[in-house]
Amino acid sequence: MTTSDTIETGEATDALRRRQADEPTSRVARFGTDRPLVLDAGLTLAPWQIAYETYGTLNAAKSNAVLVCHALTGDQYVASTNPLTGKPGWWELVVGPGKPIDTDRFFVISSNVLGGCMGTTGPASFNPATGKAWGLDLPVITIADMVRAQAALIDHLGIPDLFLVAGGSMGGMQVLQWASAYPDRVFAAAPIATAASHSAQNIAFYEVGRQAVMADPDWREGRYLDFGVQPRKGLAVARMAAHITYMSEVSLHSKFGRRLQHGDTLGYGFDGDFQIESYLRHQGSTFVDRFDANSYLYVSRAMDYFDLAADHGGVLAGAFRGTKTRFCVMSFTTDWAFPTRDSRVIVHALAAAGAKVSFAEIESDRGHDAFLRDEPEMHAILAGFIDAAARARGI
Amino acid sequence: MTTSDTIETGEATDALRRRQADEPTSRVARFGTDRPLVLDAGLTLAPWQIAYETYGTLNAAKSNAVLVCHALTGDQYVASTNPLTGKPGWWELVVGPGKPIDTDRFFVISSNVLGGCMGTTGPASFNPATGKAWGLDLPVITIADMVRAQAALIDHLGIPDLFLVAGGSMGGMQVLQWASAYPDRVFAAAPIATAASHSAQNIAFYEVGRQAVMADPDWREGRYLDFGVQPRKGLAVARMAAHITYMSEVSLHSKFGRRLQHGDTLGYGFDGDFQIESYLRHQGSTFVDRFDANSYLYVSRAMDYFDLAADHGGVLAGAFRGTKTRFCVMSFTTDWAFPTRDSRVIVHALAAAGAKVSFAEIESDRGHDAFLRDEPEMHAILAGFIDAAARARGI
Repeated sequence: MTTSDTIETGEATDALRRRQADEPTSRVARFGTDRPLVLDAGLTLAPWQIAYETYGTLNAAKSNAVLVCHALTGDQYVASTNPLTGKPGWWELVVGPGKPIDTDRFFVISSNVLGGCMGTTGPASFNPATGKAWGLDLPVITIADMVRAQAALIDHLGIPDLFLVAGGSMGGMQVLQWASAYPDRVFAAAPIATAASHSAQNIAFYEVGRQAVMADPDWREGRYLDFGVQPRKGLAVARMAAHITYMSEVSLHSKFGRRLQHGDTLGYGFDGDFQIESYLRHQGSTFVDRFDANSYLYVSRAMDYFDLAADHGGVLAGAFRGTKTRFCVMSFTTDWAFPTRDSRVIVHALAAAGAKVSFAEIESDRGHDAFLRDEPEMHAILAGFIDAAARARGI
Repeated sequence: MTTSDTIETGEATDALRRRQADEPTSRVARFGTDRPLVLDAGLTLAPWQIAYETYGTLNAAKSNAVLVCHALTGDQYVASTNPLTGKPGWWELVVGPGKPIDTDRFFVISSNVLGGCMGTTGPASFNPATGKAWGLDLPVITIADMVRAQAALIDHLGIPDLFLVAGGSMGGMQVLQWASAYPDRVFAAAPIATAASHSAQNIAFYEVGRQAVMADPDWREGRYLDFGVQPRKGLAVARMAAHITYMSEVSLHSKFGRRLQHGDTLGYGFDGDFQIESYLRHQGSTFVDRFDANSYLYVSRAMDYFDLAADHGGVLAGAFRGTKTRFCVMSFTTDWAFPTRDSRVIVHALAAAGAKVSFAEIESDRGHDAFLRDEPEMHAILAGFIDAAARARGI
């Protein structure tokens, strides 16, 4: 099968996507009933599995391992071709030979999150207890559960600790959780465009998305995989709503403004006169080809539930007390989903906890999506932070 | 029938709402085939009707008429009980005896917009050509069409010109259109929390809402009224998405934050743990009891199409050249749907056109919704503006 074979839509893609949920193209670590995963929901998960990719080579001292954590709809293909879309890895600007996270220097691990749909156990995975997909029988997953699963993978790989954990958005939440839950296993941490708790506004937007999915009759109370269908329309609407929050008003204005799809003539209809409408519809429809609707419910819910301070009596500094980890926190000026004030809350808590922390607010027009884009200042700061940390660790 | 009888849900409310579309509780002006309404879409509408309420008394000189224009989901019940919801008028803080728009002093007219569902011709209205509801057979409506219909109503009432046209949000768009299209019939104009063109971000959010409605199988390609159903879920999702944009991040945070619906226990499910989720679901479900889904498509589309500068060669000042109307423009600090910069664009154009214009940015936490709420500074400024204008006109 060549890569181009995988760029299909409709039934062919549905079948490919369903296969990836259990038999990913990437590596996968499987844990049997003897190694259950304890979940925040108060249940255990077994058997379970975690799909991952690695880049570069682990050194003899095992001191150069980097974990990259992905965002809501990301995956383990951080620097390699996504087998469903055929597209390059989602952070190839940051991870690769000579890049800020230099795969010539570091051993980079990236895994699909628990609750995801690219090979780590999630609602689209096979549930041996029923012989069907988990669907909503899967317990609700938290960011701490995702991190616990990643820690089990790191153990499985025989890696004692991580030189660096890095990620943006929900990836940044995992970075914070790692640093808080496993302070002795994280030498350096780079939480980017993130927050220590999901805001009411973000919860609201994701709730709209979940309601859109669950309103679609093809959702079938979450059992759509049993019927060979998918809530395509509902999931597309969810993606459209979320996508708006990832872009800045200024980038929407400069990229699309009020430009029309066809010349300068209004259509006097509902077929998408404006370029921004076509763009959003395209975002929605391509998304459903690569993502499972129930995974969208689970992973967005994990973000909503994230509240690191609440786990420490309401005091965020308590999450980092006595930490030796060095932090590099970054935000973007036009990011209104995870605005700079969310990063400042993190920075103040780290400072109060006596942690080593540097902070940069990057000037960018690109809104929340900036962390995925070509942002030289962010890349330079990240590279500098990593280089200094590597020298401090003697790598 | 008492007011409380009207606060029903489900089928009873559906029947009441459908009746209001043709036989509103309010007054209605009907125009026959001899008085067609010319639409921007290049078609004419006949017969057609416009539903309206009036408050106060027209003076002998007919110089004290005020037109209040409503927003996307508003109606003619600006200062009287809404017959569907049983709730007070939507702007009773602004319109009434002794209020900024003083009904002891002025004759106030408020009409349901063209494309609406409260008695003015819209997609839920009876189409005599088919014997069914118009549905999507109704041509797409613009803000200019709405204003043309209001002008026909003013003619019908024998009123030569308006002392004041006022409104917020989409109401403010109508105010701007009135002042531009009928400069000699508008003595004073108060466009509040509005814009001279809908932004790409606003178009994007409304497109999400329309897609949610049209994705609902109960929408039935727009012919749901023929089947006695309604795209309730899709319309609720649309309302939820829009509602978020009407509130500021700070008000969402202070009103709801991350507070849970039931004590301090996470439910580990998708049933709405957070108060913000319950609130949004409530907003969505009450909305579908009072609003027609196709009207939502039409009226939101009218906002998207609004671009007053485009009608004047791209120069907004051209819309107001030589105007004698005096303007009071207001915006709110935390309104991100219609931010202050949109109002500044209007103010600069008016200044460039040589118009008399005053501008105030009101400090408020309430976001776009502020124009509907108890905002003493806004009310004081509006009252002062109106009083000065009334003295200038000798009322």
